[in-house]
Amino acid sequence: MLKLVFVRHGLSEWNALNQFTGWVDVDLSETGVEEAQAAGQKIKDAGIQFDVAYTSVLKRAIKTCNYVLEGSDQLWIPQYKSWRLNERHYGALQGLNKEETAAKYGADQVQLWRRSYDTLPPLLEETDPTSAVNDRRYASLDRRVIPGGENLKVTLERAIPFWEDHIAPALLDSKTVLVAAHGNSLRALAKHIEGISDDDIMGLEIPTGQPLVYELNDDLSVSKKYYL
Amino acid sequence: MLKLVFVRHGLSEWNALNQFTGWVDVDLSETGVEEAQAAGQKIKDAGIQFDVAYTSVLKRAIKTCNYVLEGSDQLWIPQYKSWRLNERHYGALQGLNKEETAAKYGADQVQLWRRSYDTLPPLLEETDPTSAVNDRRYASLDRRVIPGGENLKVTLERAIPFWEDHIAPALLDSKTVLVAAHGNSLRALAKHIEGISDDDIMGLEIPTGQPLVYELNDDLSVSKKYYL
Repeated sequence: MLKLVFVRHGLSEWNALNQFTGWVDVDLSETGVEEAQAAGQKIKDAGIQFDVAYTSVLKRAIKTCNYVLEGSDQLWIPQYKSWRLNERHYGALQGLNKEETAAKYGADQVQLWRRSYDTLPPLLEETDPTSAVNDRRYASLDRRVIPGGENLKVTLERAIPFWEDHIAPALLDSKTVLVAAHGNSLRALAKHIEGISDDDIMGLEIPTGQPLVYELNDDLSVSKKYYL
Repeated sequence: MLKLVFVRHGLSEWNALNQFTGWVDVDLSETGVEEAQAAGQKIKDAGIQFDVAYTSVLKRAIKTCNYVLEGSDQLWIPQYKSWRLNERHYGALQGLNKEETAAKYGADQVQLWRRSYDTLPPLLEETDPTSAVNDRRYASLDRRVIPGGENLKVTLERAIPFWEDHIAPALLDSKTVLVAAHGNSLRALAKHIEGISDDDIMGLEIPTGQPLVYELNDDLSVSKKYYL
């Protein structure tokens, strides 16, 4: 049986402030660190031995990955970081307080941006100093793939090539895989793995810091799915 | 000018106990964590931007690497872990207190094991439960390359292929490289880079937690060498 484990990072410093985060490289809060360490302990208790770990290029996911590996005494496992596992880019909403945004644009509009599969947020201009085009970590990318804002559909379209090129081949090579990432990049992968519809996917909420285990058949169909 | 930075991990829990450590996967002490964080701050202050980081498969080096990258706000940099950057394997001396070992074998013999370029320590048998052959992280290696004990000469012979295959090609590709590793694996690399003789190399002591910067010419000869 092939095994894949998702860990969604816990509370970040901006979650605590109720701000849209997206691609802003915010650190874990102290609670977020504790969530990651607890996830590592659960994986250790379950005796799960990873062969490879994948994470995003955002520190809240990377640190979660590291705490999980360290807590399960396998920090030596190969780890790969990719922008394709980043959180959904929240466009010009990044850095805004969610309540202030609701007061400005209306609660219905904000709900649509947060819960619609294919509605884009207001885009962040490339001229904005906080645009990812100004960030060295994306300097080797074709500028056309650097988003100014994403919905879940776009997030999925850029995350699935990583599944196809890295995660699925590792699983098919019988490797046990850890993916430590974000609410929406994990949701995108889950949609693909479980075949969830566009309408139903926004209802899927993966809890933070709780390792989600997929046991997969040889054709990568889901045999079992459970939380540790 | 090509740039290469070495960081030797700081105090581990066994350094504090004055025990031979080698390939035993001992954690950093609190002091060791602080040394790594201070190294990260120095690299941040110096404005050094890495393109790739290499470390061993031992947590005291990996965590040092992570603290350095986090402290210089580049945790997203690709990181590769290899047994070839491990500390020198100290054979059957691993886990023994250095004073007790001196009392048992004589101070001159222990000094020889510690300071000779090509004297092997007493070897750890593969039947010993602490042998690396029983450790999952080395399971994919040809068993004949897993040492029962190493001198600096053997350490160098298994570290240099990593220089040749990974570090040197990255430098020649104009990448700025971080190597976070151990006293003897870094000493081996330094011997190779600087062309230090067998007789002189044991006199080279790279201080812990102090980033050592090499500025290299296009043929990888040393232009400048300094500590931050």
